[in-house]
Amino acid sequence: MSSEFGKKLTVSIFGQSHGEAIGCVVNGFPAGEEIDFDKLSRFMDRRRGGKGAHSTLRAEADKPEFLSGVAEGKTCAFPLCAIIKNADKRSGDYSALQNTPRPGHADLTAYFKWGRNVDMRGGGHFSGRLTAPICVAGGIAKQILERKGVFIGAHVSQIAGVKDASFPVFPEKAMFDEISEKKIPVIDDQAGDEMLSEIEQARLSLDSVGGIVECAIIGVPEGLGNPMFDGVENRLAQAIFGIPAVKGVEFGAGFEAANLRGSQNNDAFFFDEKGRVRSETNHSGGILGGITTGMPITLRAAFKPTPSISGKQKTVNLETKENTEIEISGRHDPTVVIRAVPVVEAVCALTVLDMMLEENQ
Amino acid sequence: MSSEFGKKLTVSIFGQSHGEAIGCVVNGFPAGEEIDFDKLSRFMDRRRGGKGAHSTLRAEADKPEFLSGVAEGKTCAFPLCAIIKNADKRSGDYSALQNTPRPGHADLTAYFKWGRNVDMRGGGHFSGRLTAPICVAGGIAKQILERKGVFIGAHVSQIAGVKDASFPVFPEKAMFDEISEKKIPVIDDQAGDEMLSEIEQARLSLDSVGGIVECAIIGVPEGLGNPMFDGVENRLAQAIFGIPAVKGVEFGAGFEAANLRGSQNNDAFFFDEKGRVRSETNHSGGILGGITTGMPITLRAAFKPTPSISGKQKTVNLETKENTEIEISGRHDPTVVIRAVPVVEAVCALTVLDMMLEENQ
Amino acid sequence: MSSEFGKKLTVSIFGQSHGEAIGCVVNGFPAGEEIDFDKLSRFMDRRRGGKGAHSTLRAEADKPEFLSGVAEGKTCAFPLCAIIKNADKRSGDYSALQNTPRPGHADLTAYFKWGRNVDMRGGGHFSGRLTAPICVAGGIAKQILERKGVFIGAHVSQIAGVKDASFPVFPEKAMFDEISEKKIPVIDDQAGDEMLSEIEQARLSLDSVGGIVECAIIGVPEGLGNPMFDGVENRLAQAIFGIPAVKGVEFGAGFEAANLRGSQNNDAFFFDEKGRVRSETNHSGGILGGITTGMPITLRAAFKPTPSISGKQKTVNLETKENTEIEISGRHDPTVVIRAVPVVEAVCALTVLDMMLEENQ
Amino acid sequence: MSSEFGKKLTVSIFGQSHGEAIGCVVNGFPAGEEIDFDKLSRFMDRRRGGKGAHSTLRAEADKPEFLSGVAEGKTCAFPLCAIIKNADKRSGDYSALQNTPRPGHADLTAYFKWGRNVDMRGGGHFSGRLTAPICVAGGIAKQILERKGVFIGAHVSQIAGVKDASFPVFPEKAMFDEISEKKIPVIDDQAGDEMLSEIEQARLSLDSVGGIVECAIIGVPEGLGNPMFDGVENRLAQAIFGIPAVKGVEFGAGFEAANLRGSQNNDAFFFDEKGRVRSETNHSGGILGGITTGMPITLRAAFKPTPSISGKQKTVNLETKENTEIEISGRHDPTVVIRAVPVVEAVCALTVLDMMLEENQ
Repeated sequence: MSSEFGKKLTVSIFGQSHGEAIGCVVNGFPAGEEIDFDKLSRFMDRRRGGKGAHSTLRAEADKPEFLSGVAEGKTCAFPLCAIIKNADKRSGDYSALQNTPRPGHADLTAYFKWGRNVDMRGGGHFSGRLTAPICVAGGIAKQILERKGVFIGAHVSQIAGVKDASFPVFPEKAMFDEISEKKIPVIDDQAGDEMLSEIEQARLSLDSVGGIVECAIIGVPEGLGNPMFDGVENRLAQAIFGIPAVKGVEFGAGFEAANLRGSQNNDAFFFDEKGRVRSETNHSGGILGGITTGMPITLRAAFKPTPSISGKQKTVNLETKENTEIEISGRHDPTVVIRAVPVVEAVCALTVLDMMLEENQ
Repeated sequence: MSSEFGKKLTVSIFGQSHGEAIGCVVNGFPAGEEIDFDKLSRFMDRRRGGKGAHSTLRAEADKPEFLSGVAEGKTCAFPLCAIIKNADKRSGDYSALQNTPRPGHADLTAYFKWGRNVDMRGGGHFSGRLTAPICVAGGIAKQILERKGVFIGAHVSQIAGVKDASFPVFPEKAMFDEISEKKIPVIDDQAGDEMLSEIEQARLSLDSVGGIVECAIIGVPEGLGNPMFDGVENRLAQAIFGIPAVKGVEFGAGFEAANLRGSQNNDAFFFDEKGRVRSETNHSGGILGGITTGMPITLRAAFKPTPSISGKQKTVNLETKENTEIEISGRHDPTVVIRAVPVVEAVCALTVLDMMLEENQ
Repeated sequence: MSSEFGKKLTVSIFGQSHGEAIGCVVNGFPAGEEIDFDKLSRFMDRRRGGKGAHSTLRAEADKPEFLSGVAEGKTCAFPLCAIIKNADKRSGDYSALQNTPRPGHADLTAYFKWGRNVDMRGGGHFSGRLTAPICVAGGIAKQILERKGVFIGAHVSQIAGVKDASFPVFPEKAMFDEISEKKIPVIDDQAGDEMLSEIEQARLSLDSVGGIVECAIIGVPEGLGNPMFDGVENRLAQAIFGIPAVKGVEFGAGFEAANLRGSQNNDAFFFDEKGRVRSETNHSGGILGGITTGMPITLRAAFKPTPSISGKQKTVNLETKENTEIEISGRHDPTVVIRAVPVVEAVCALTVLDMMLEENQ
Repeated sequence: MSSEFGKKLTVSIFGQSHGEAIGCVVNGFPAGEEIDFDKLSRFMDRRRGGKGAHSTLRAEADKPEFLSGVAEGKTCAFPLCAIIKNADKRSGDYSALQNTPRPGHADLTAYFKWGRNVDMRGGGHFSGRLTAPICVAGGIAKQILERKGVFIGAHVSQIAGVKDASFPVFPEKAMFDEISEKKIPVIDDQAGDEMLSEIEQARLSLDSVGGIVECAIIGVPEGLGNPMFDGVENRLAQAIFGIPAVKGVEFGAGFEAANLRGSQNNDAFFFDEKGRVRSETNHSGGILGGITTGMPITLRAAFKPTPSISGKQKTVNLETKENTEIEISGRHDPTVVIRAVPVVEAVCALTVLDMMLEENQ
């Protein structure tokens, strides 16, 4: 349902921002897979934006505890449950917070759906914090995929109008590793510096910026996916739109294909030296008819600017039924895009592993 | 699975381009809904692009026969099956066609998935022709939605670089109706003329062009949708990527949000004269946290150029394992974008009706 | 949803008793599987009870037409749609029929659910006739399973208190074939004769009789199924209760296990001459913890007596809100049990094939 | 998937017998529902068999901690996660335990499915202990249902050949309450005493006994459920077979219907004094065509004898590939039937609530 996705590998996310704990239950991880907890921890750190001052504002431990599904450091055939305790939980009458819904947040729509019967403290279940258990599940999926020769990398493709270079037609694992070590995960460091500068300017003007994450998945077996509504694009898009703030998803040339002619957009096939079918361009993003070609899967996800900004904003008072203004106090993260990079990788890993497991690959 | 979507309203599409018939089975239409068959027929005609020379090349009757689920002109509580017989079916050894997969088509990936055991005559189940039964199901869904006050309209937002105007923040049914009557469904007729000229140029150079369809859904109840992976965006995107040639989907400001600051992108709320919460802008596309705000839902889908073009193209011979060239004979539709307009509407109608039925709305 | 089941192999059944046609759509049959249409036809004949006078009352052709999913006599990777046209369709105001619901039928509950907006002519979508498309799908599944070494047989285990012998611990394909050729599919012909006599007596007294079908599935790979809610029992039971008139399902010793001690009920394991783990008894019905042991899967399904009987019966008039009586005219089939035998096989075949395909077996 | 069930209300169970914790995640509880934690605790106690010496052998606290989905004592719109920590967790090389699989347990089938890569200490995820989180979820569902006027009661219908009385045609809440307070939950206390005596005898002979649980659900709205594969019977059966040791499920007259004639089995309808359609008998178990009649839903589930018995049993050594014997040490519960009574109620509550929520009831 709402907080679950997947078919043979199902991921269920639970928790509110200020509840006891957040976590995930994953059904369907192959049994006997070793989990490298240090590597998982480093992956989780990327989501916390730990390397710079640009993105995280409060220290969160975010260390997952594994309640089930793991024995002797390996997956043990049964549902995996991992939880992350909330250090920062608050009680008290939270329903009052919903009277003046913050623009760009789910406050208003949560009110429409559940009235006062909803725990929206700190964003509730809509909080970006819920991407932490997605990264626990996805980090393990990435490790399993790597043993199958499938590697996933992402970078900030654009922030506030500043564009990074694109992945080459054939990105490699080494590139993914290098990017993931950077303070800001980009290909072109100069673009990265400009992005940081844009973020800083936004922060100083109490504003925020949006951006785009580009992701590539290499080593995916050819022939994965199904026609029409169960293709690789359908499945990835459905999952990626589950990441807070995503407003667009495109594959290969994506919206740019609208500017191309067929003679430009078609990827011409050839046999490479290993006898594999390849193409010199990859406008299809590695997917034709919903099914993988064996070329890298490439996609881009658009993130809106963080809706939490510090200036005055117009809104409504749902109790008095009058128009009003609010000012959101506290320090805010001026962009979610950098922290979103490993989250996109995590969601892609879970979806691709799910689809491979469906084919027993 | 692959050719099915929906939860409480499920749509299953079957058929190959050159098989006996194509069709759909829909479970979950509300009982007792009158079907206006003339209106349905006019809706189907829009997919055939019947009004101009730009899009259709062969006459297809496309008249659906209803085998079940309809009695006395109304839905009758049980699964609806409608079929469209294929006038143009051919037998013979079709497997040979797959030796030299056409770039941009699913020929190669179908071969990877099923080897020779697949009926790819005329594109098989991947053919654009399969959008006809989608329109049967979606056309009925549209009629049911209209009785609930929900209206769906779409237009060609871009073809080959030529851009139409965008829907206003509050589009109205009359506008949808007007657009749907046009030879090319656009808001700005001059843009439409330029598009037709681009299409004609592509056709003359034996090439094809891609484009974008913008769709708006008005009258959707507020509070529809669920958090995370079962929001309105997740569900619509999953379904829309089921339309052949779609390579990108975005909601509201979409990818443009990457260029905006939070102060620009946030939609400020106010009470309108009827006491409804509205916003002056609609960068959210009517969806916050996956749940509807009551504002129009707006989305855009990118279509790649028709992969069938007439010039020589490089490809591989899967039998001889040699690189080769092909030339695709016959006349081709230089763009799918115009015909895709009602298909986008149909898929949106089915998805929104499904989500409304889940809430018994 | 309602008329669909399966995960990787999904079966969707459509049609009303007096509509244009009934049929099925199956997604997920492996590609390239030859269909023996004669064999399928013989399988369908068993459902029609064609060999004796005991069960069928009107001649139905029941010949399926394949609209999609089949090419050159083989499954072709895409959704298979087969239809059976209704020779005996009637129009006219059918809603009146629902005023006095027939006891034991779905007339009353259909009225509760859909009011007058439902096509209940001849039982509508609840008619036993809808088991014909189940047999089309299941008959093909059986053929595919046989190539994998999996064989399914069923017999009338009980009718009106007369009991047939039970399958031995290790039933064989030859036994299944032999039973399927009989006028009444039983192991012990004398029991069969007594059953026929009971049926005849019921018929003469304008009454009907219930019974039990026992089914065995041999050759199923060990290790099939999943814990808790997705075990082989869960899946088979969910599907078998979809056959009209089924009121109970049990596996292995089933309800009899309530009378046994653990020391009697536990099946002791041993290695057979081929090194396979086997047990001398099979009280588990080949399933432990929801997962197959490699022993035959055995199950029994209870069928209620045909609710259509000829005497006067008390019922209500839903229009006048008064208690009343009805007499159901026409000749009725005094038992569904004999015709249900291949239907049980069909449903088991589809479910087991689905679960095997999920494991790529 | 495997450890999940439900559609609009989904229940996911996780945990191994000797892992860190067991628990559940429930998506879809209505928001704002107060949870009576004392009442829930008393319900949980019934599963522990706390009132007598007949069933529990070790003290378990089984107190659930709520990590999410609850705020200020109410459901808060988001996924509910509850965990029960395992006091009795053991580490060490557990894989050795699987060499000689215990007859009647899932040891063998787990080995077939996952080889050594499975945590089967104490039965792993197959342990009866996993019914505790089912009762947490189901206990809350029961409380919500009671506010909707739906009440669920169950009793031990049979143990080791000793039969309790059956529920009357119209059981009442007071009866359910009374039974639930008893040392052994039966209608006829004398039958209860005989059952206890049978259990004691089995215990003394180091053996175990099976039995049957009868469950009734009153107050269910008429018209609930869907045709064919998504009826009330299909859904309940699928879920009930998820309770460990269940080998049969029947509704209404169930297998007994095989002995009845149609004239006996059909339930004659009449209007009761409140103008509701009722029937004097309830052989249908409140379900016709998969849809509720408004009469009580009645069902029976057969439980096999506890497979853990103390004598020597034949089995195989999967390592040496030789036939061998095992003796299972420790004290064992001679029957699961008494403890299963609230578990059956819990599963029924979750399923019925799910189906009601699907209809927004």
